[in-house]
Amino acid sequence: MNIVHQPQTTPSNYPPENLSPDQLHSILTQIKDYQTNHGSLLKVIGSETPHSVHLQPVSTSVFPTVFSRRLFNEAVDDLQLIYNELYCKLAEDVEWLYAVTGPLRRTEPLVDALWHVYEEIQRRRQDYGSQYIEQKIHAGVFRSDYMLHVRSDTTIDSDDEEDENWTQNLCLKQVEFNSYSCAGGCHADKVAGMHRFLARRGLYDFASSSEDPEEQSINIRILPSSLPQNNTINGIASVLASAHKTYGSKPFSSKASHIAVLMVVQPNNFNIADERPIEYALWNWIDGEPIPTYRIEWQQILHHTQLTPTGELLFFPPENGDSTITQPVEISVIYHRAGYEPHEYSEDINGKEIRTRLEVSRAIKCPSILGHITTIKSVQQALTGPGALERWLTKEKAGRIRGTFVEICSLGDFMSSAKNPIKDEELAENYILKPASLEGGGNNIYGADIPAFLKTMSPEGSEKSAYILMERIRSPLNVYGMLMSSSRGVTADEVVSEFGVFGGCLWERKESSSEQDKCQVIMNRVIGWSFKTKEVTVDEMSVVKGYGCFDTPYLVD
Amino acid sequence: MNIVHQPQTTPSNYPPENLSPDQLHSILTQIKDYQTNHGSLLKVIGSETPHSVHLQPVSTSVFPTVFSRRLFNEAVDDLQLIYNELYCKLAEDVEWLYAVTGPLRRTEPLVDALWHVYEEIQRRRQDYGSQYIEQKIHAGVFRSDYMLHVRSDTTIDSDDEEDENWTQNLCLKQVEFNSYSCAGGCHADKVAGMHRFLARRGLYDFASSSEDPEEQSINIRILPSSLPQNNTINGIASVLASAHKTYGSKPFSSKASHIAVLMVVQPNNFNIADERPIEYALWNWIDGEPIPTYRIEWQQILHHTQLTPTGELLFFPPENGDSTITQPVEISVIYHRAGYEPHEYSEDINGKEIRTRLEVSRAIKCPSILGHITTIKSVQQALTGPGALERWLTKEKAGRIRGTFVEICSLGDFMSSAKNPIKDEELAENYILKPASLEGGGNNIYGADIPAFLKTMSPEGSEKSAYILMERIRSPLNVYGMLMSSSRGVTADEVVSEFGVFGGCLWERKESSSEQDKCQVIMNRVIGWSFKTKEVTVDEMSVVKGYGCFDTPYLVD
Repeated sequence: MNIVHQPQTTPSNYPPENLSPDQLHSILTQIKDYQTNHGSLLKVIGSETPHSVHLQPVSTSVFPTVFSRRLFNEAVDDLQLIYNELYCKLAEDVEWLYAVTGPLRRTEPLVDALWHVYEEIQRRRQDYGSQYIEQKIHAGVFRSDYMLHVRSDTTIDSDDEEDENWTQNLCLKQVEFNSYSCAGGCHADKVAGMHRFLARRGLYDFASSSEDPEEQSINIRILPSSLPQNNTINGIASVLASAHKTYGSKPFSSKASHIAVLMVVQPNNFNIADERPIEYALWNWIDGEPIPTYRIEWQQILHHTQLTPTGELLFFPPENGDSTITQPVEISVIYHRAGYEPHEYSEDINGKEIRTRLEVSRAIKCPSILGHITTIKSVQQALTGPGALERWLTKEKAGRIRGTFVEICSLGDFMSSAKNPIKDEELAENYILKPASLEGGGNNIYGADIPAFLKTMSPEGSEKSAYILMERIRSPLNVYGMLMSSSRGVTADEVVSEFGVFGGCLWERKESSSEQDKCQVIMNRVIGWSFKTKEVTVDEMSVVKGYGCFDTPYLVD
Repeated sequence: MNIVHQPQTTPSNYPPENLSPDQLHSILTQIKDYQTNHGSLLKVIGSETPHSVHLQPVSTSVFPTVFSRRLFNEAVDDLQLIYNELYCKLAEDVEWLYAVTGPLRRTEPLVDALWHVYEEIQRRRQDYGSQYIEQKIHAGVFRSDYMLHVRSDTTIDSDDEEDENWTQNLCLKQVEFNSYSCAGGCHADKVAGMHRFLARRGLYDFASSSEDPEEQSINIRILPSSLPQNNTINGIASVLASAHKTYGSKPFSSKASHIAVLMVVQPNNFNIADERPIEYALWNWIDGEPIPTYRIEWQQILHHTQLTPTGELLFFPPENGDSTITQPVEISVIYHRAGYEPHEYSEDINGKEIRTRLEVSRAIKCPSILGHITTIKSVQQALTGPGALERWLTKEKAGRIRGTFVEICSLGDFMSSAKNPIKDEELAENYILKPASLEGGGNNIYGADIPAFLKTMSPEGSEKSAYILMERIRSPLNVYGMLMSSSRGVTADEVVSEFGVFGGCLWERKESSSEQDKCQVIMNRVIGWSFKTKEVTVDEMSVVKGYGCFDTPYLVD
């Protein structure tokens, strides 16, 4: 008897434990070779010379990890468009943003730098003559990250492995919202393509013999239809393409030869495979003409750009040589993949001037400086306040996304509380301490480490305002996976995944008497997703450190 | 004044010498990043572990190297179809092949192994009952390699840099013809895609200031139209797809689940990026259904295959685990990328049995054992004999390809000659000594090294029959290039290129009274090309050693 086990629930024998060495070797080899041939790679840090570089595969799951189909669809079909709308509107609500993040300027250099740039832009715009043209249209490539959460009215029963409906008790909880320089989209696209290929290739078809004559051959088979398609590379490119088209069809400046997208990047990025595919997609843009796309390192911007009196940003590509001879390019869209670290705004590289020049220009910014400020953690915290969302959203929409919030507090809120996780290690287990100004998991303090960490701080509390406390998400138990990374090898263990949905927007600043009504959304799309998995015993989702692995959700009902 | 220099002749200032460090850095970075993202890579030997591997870019030219458009077209549009026809016919002319290569069996283990396999197949076929079905259709993926040659009636004038018509005095001369396990097609495809992208990207547009006010800005621009497209990956896949379709639409054996192509490879190949893309192309085959394609290492074949009494080759993919449970696959086409080295036929791995099992099966072989034997160097030599080609080709076709031959002799021919390059170092300069049984440049002895090498041999001459002497091709002077490789860095020097044309064929063995008339060509196509460039001061074209670099011809009239 030959049964194809196409699970409606979490498969208890997945990934299979009885792989032969031949099978495992074959799967691992196919993964490494696929990654080699499709650029699912990282540069080995320190290996690059003018003529060569060493590369290694990015961390990836060996098997796609189970995830709820219902919640995947909810995030993609429903939540993301509301989140996109919210963050477009936040990005034009300067009054509210300043109220929430302004207090951090005193302790947080990055927050201070961003507001400094904002203020400088307002001054410059007034200095310009009447000929200066302000760009009122902005673009965004956002990513909202979720984890599966066991509803608090559900008992977690670790012995209940045969639970037929494990996804029913689950909901999505937001880890964070990123509105600036969202990474991982290209890797997620390639790894999903890989898992879908390997499934089509039959590598996830498993046979196992059984004592029971009725089940002499039980097969597990992951059908490619259980693995969602991922076109995030083209998705991100499509936002930039739309912005490019919105800018105009030809240069406004008579000096420029053509218009182009400019991708601003950090120097010597070892994660080039998460950036270049977007350039290639635009140069190969099939939905119309190819879209010229250039790339400049953050600290080289002042040397290679000029502003015209009317605000156009002229760019002199380094590869074109002598800028006294060659014609510049007029930049239509600035796509930020740098400028999110405090040192990038330091005096020695004139960092605030770099950002100011880009920001004051007529180019469409992806995103604007205010769009950037929305990514600060204290914004996420403020949105959890009672009635906060209704400032921009209908009650119905507000309700939908409020369901994805966990409790987020400032440390001050807890100081006066009886239940104080700051001092109580047992209570602290339910929390994560995150910097209020930064995104990303690398700077977090987890659970029981919180009280000891806080003791290192001065008692007056100015440092403490730089942190928020976030309730820990209760991930479902008994989800197993097999992960491989260059630094940590192959591991088979209980795992937890993070699901990110990419959104793409264009919006325009309108004149209005009320602050919360100055944004008109022009375009609002879901453009892709990413899915990362780590062992439950590890706190960080860092891919660079080999903890987090790019993955594909294996959707089950 | 702005002149676009689209050269009709060899551009004397190409590649440009006055690149700024910024320009060169940008071009080299774009090349490395493109190669990273498109799998134009080699595994670093010794770096692979179960969970990781290090990769580095394959050697490549920084700038496309000039080549004659007329001769490119001649090789692709004209010569290759004749060469394809010739080698299909050779591969069924066992009498002639044995006369030419049989004498090498005594000294050459590889030649002896191939004929041993051929003879064993004849015996086995007779042992089978009447139910056995012989596969009479064979496939070939060939590659004919050429270099530019200055006609001998032309004076080479090294000072004549301004020669307006340098391509007029050039013709193509064949370096070798490969009919077995032709490599380089995937790399050539990717590197051509890269150079075309970089041209489109504007990286080969150069401006230089001039003292002359009339030419204040002279631009060089390589238009993508000067760089031919290369679709060799799909080209090779298309031959296998045609063979697969020719085999049948479903398994002949009731035991098998489906039919599939089997790619036979060497173990632990660091050059995986030249093999895997063909598998991916077949699994993603868009011209019809996906074509299942498996891969097996040479020494694992006996363990993972079975022959049915009627001759079908059943394959048990290692990734499917326990072969007592899973259904085998029936192999439609065997694509050889292994079995070309003497040690692969050794007793300890039962190598002759490996090849015999594949060969006796009903699968279509790409190519057959006789097709393999045609790649022996002494065949190339024999074809240069007076009237030799007319055994299979019309006088007109024979004349066309005879024009690409250089003088090839056995050492014996020279022993009695007054002009004996074997002893005379000056004469030896005009020759290359090549093993009569092997293909590939790694085993050659060049020019002045020949006399000393021959002195190491025994006087009776049995070893000497293992070598042929080939006239050296007189490459045009003053072709410059810039090359980059992981092992040798970036070099700018005078260069020489080798142009290979890929052909794809299907043919059928017919009953006929005459040996030379037993082949009916079913399909004859040109499926791609490769182009490799090295410094003139280096003899070998080895890409692995970093001498030869994948390149794209920059076609000039």
